[in-house]
Amino acid sequence: MITTILKDILKDGISVVERISNKSLTLPILNNILIKTEKNFLNLSSTDLEIGIQWWSLVKTEKEGMITIPAKLLSSFVNYLPNKPISLKVKGVDLQVECENRQTIIKGMDAEEFPIIPKIAKDEKLIIDSKLFCKSLAKVVDVASYSSTKAEISGVYFLFQKDMITMTATDSFRLGEKKLYLNPASDLSKNYSLILPQRTAKELINIFGEKEGNLNIYFSPNQIMFEKLLASTDHPYIQIISRLIEGEYPNYQEIIPKSHETKISFKADELINQIKLASLFSDKVNEVKIKVDPKKGELGVSSQNSEIGEHQGSIKVKVEGKSCEISFNHRFLLDGILSVVSGEEKNPEMTLELSGSDKPGVLRSKKDDSYLYLIMPIKTN
Amino acid sequence: MITTILKDILKDGISVVERISNKSLTLPILNNILIKTEKNFLNLSSTDLEIGIQWWSLVKTEKEGMITIPAKLLSSFVNYLPNKPISLKVKGVDLQVECENRQTIIKGMDAEEFPIIPKIAKDEKLIIDSKLFCKSLAKVVDVASYSSTKAEISGVYFLFQKDMITMTATDSFRLGEKKLYLNPASDLSKNYSLILPQRTAKELINIFGEKEGNLNIYFSPNQIMFEKLLASTDHPYIQIISRLIEGEYPNYQEIIPKSHETKISFKADELINQIKLASLFSDKVNEVKIKVDPKKGELGVSSQNSEIGEHQGSIKVKVEGKSCEISFNHRFLLDGILSVVSGEEKNPEMTLELSGSDKPGVLRSKKDDSYLYLIMPIKTN
Repeated sequence: MITTILKDILKDGISVVERISNKSLTLPILNNILIKTEKNFLNLSSTDLEIGIQWWSLVKTEKEGMITIPAKLLSSFVNYLPNKPISLKVKGVDLQVECENRQTIIKGMDAEEFPIIPKIAKDEKLIIDSKLFCKSLAKVVDVASYSSTKAEISGVYFLFQKDMITMTATDSFRLGEKKLYLNPASDLSKNYSLILPQRTAKELINIFGEKEGNLNIYFSPNQIMFEKLLASTDHPYIQIISRLIEGEYPNYQEIIPKSHETKISFKADELINQIKLASLFSDKVNEVKIKVDPKKGELGVSSQNSEIGEHQGSIKVKVEGKSCEISFNHRFLLDGILSVVSGEEKNPEMTLELSGSDKPGVLRSKKDDSYLYLIMPIKTN
Repeated sequence: MITTILKDILKDGISVVERISNKSLTLPILNNILIKTEKNFLNLSSTDLEIGIQWWSLVKTEKEGMITIPAKLLSSFVNYLPNKPISLKVKGVDLQVECENRQTIIKGMDAEEFPIIPKIAKDEKLIIDSKLFCKSLAKVVDVASYSSTKAEISGVYFLFQKDMITMTATDSFRLGEKKLYLNPASDLSKNYSLILPQRTAKELINIFGEKEGNLNIYFSPNQIMFEKLLASTDHPYIQIISRLIEGEYPNYQEIIPKSHETKISFKADELINQIKLASLFSDKVNEVKIKVDPKKGELGVSSQNSEIGEHQGSIKVKVEGKSCEISFNHRFLLDGILSVVSGEEKNPEMTLELSGSDKPGVLRSKKDDSYLYLIMPIKTN
């Protein structure tokens, strides 16, 4: 392989594929990036056997070939090069690099040993704005369970419908649900429901979250592919193929309350501040107590810990309905407010709906009903 | 104790004293800050038994008293308060805090158990610009040895003379020496030489490095005090008292070469970049090879590692004297260049003086001869 590419372009490619490398102790080649020329394209790939990421760029190629190179080393190395043309030559399992007055030989591994990244049947596709999709996904992605004991809830549940994508995540203590309305409606021939691994969801946000333009989503029974094309071409720029999580997602609609007894409106930042203060004095189960007083128009936040001390604060709120006392885990409550705030205007007006001390609370943005965050109370005695 | 203070002022005080708390497992009270009212002043103190830090602010005091409170908790807590007056009340070993609509009780420990921070005889003092002193100290502080086996070189060696302060640090692989000229000369009655613990030196830079105005330095046989006064008063604002390291500092002047065979002039950034690249391919002893070619006016930087690969690069330089090949630990070489650069204009011109492959190299800024960094070569047979 002999080809030439500008530093900044190669750096873009490495930054796209490197993140899922560097993880495998048992199969060292997974720490590597596959570098390959295909006619006038340079192709970089990486995989952890669950996710495969590929990246392409138009380059001048004098001779075709391929090699795999440790991702971390290549990334640091290219970072330190000046933004000049970089010449890449493969000789056996060595990559020879030249850039201005720098000559380097990087020891690689045989490209033949690199796992093949599966193809996906390109039957039905959905086209969606890349940033909008990632912004929606970012609201729920961190709510998914990190525990691997319940595989179904370790991912983000997607329901793709003609006119709406619903994304849901839960760890059984709280749940986030985001609806992304498609306007105009897509031409999907049927609904698709699937559970995407949290890792894949995070990589999607990292890789496509700041990239303008469209994303193509391809469906298959056990896999999904997200693809971005090179500007003004039909040639792929980035493809992420991921396995899906098998199993039935819990019927979560059942636990979302259809009505409420108390509805509180408040400014996000004020409650955030009170929860942070109260969190310093909470106990082992992270309990903070919420007390809603409709007469005073106040929401009190308090906590106590026999070893550290106790705290109480209050904010002015608008209350519709009954008074209520309820306890939450301050971490989940704060996560919830922050997920409502994420991607919204600064310090938005929010609502908290309650139905008594043993029923879940529901957080929403006042302006935007497309997202809800449900949080289970801490049962006190 | 009953007093009132603005949040931002209290935050300043906590940020000054908190850094040396939070370290002790054996004596829990050292994790605390001592809070004390003295007439119209609020006084915060902390100590790790080697360093004692005190801070004062003018406040309204209704009743005198004192208490100790966990530093980390107090710091987080005050951070979250709005910039409004904070009322502090001591009741037993509880600190009662009120700030707007927030009421808090923080459990503390009895102030009587807090170690007494020693006083120092205020005989002879040196007055010096606070920022200038810290900027000079910052050049050498990281060169001191972290190992505790040779206590003498685990600190920064100071020689205070009438017209100059010399600060030196070494870990026996490299050495940094900074001269700070006093103009006009001070009225010190004699020279003082002492070894300051690296921790104290770092705290000085953190606390006084960005503060305008003068610093008073008081000398005593086993201790030293650094003091800043409250603006337009004779009352202290911050005092740092530190023990000194006992022992004889090595007679390092002997190893600083008096002459050289090769002198190379170069731009700092270019060599930094080449060393970073070469460092990726260096071996277990971090070796990078320097090759000076007076005819070509080139300095080559190369490295190789049988498992990773090899690299060579070069930069254009001005060479006076003979050609030379020498090996250095890339980490020490990079540290040295960065210490020369620290506090200077961007990308300054520098010199490297060499006297053959088995003699130390000396790095200096071309414009400023008040600092030198000496680095021992790696002996390659």
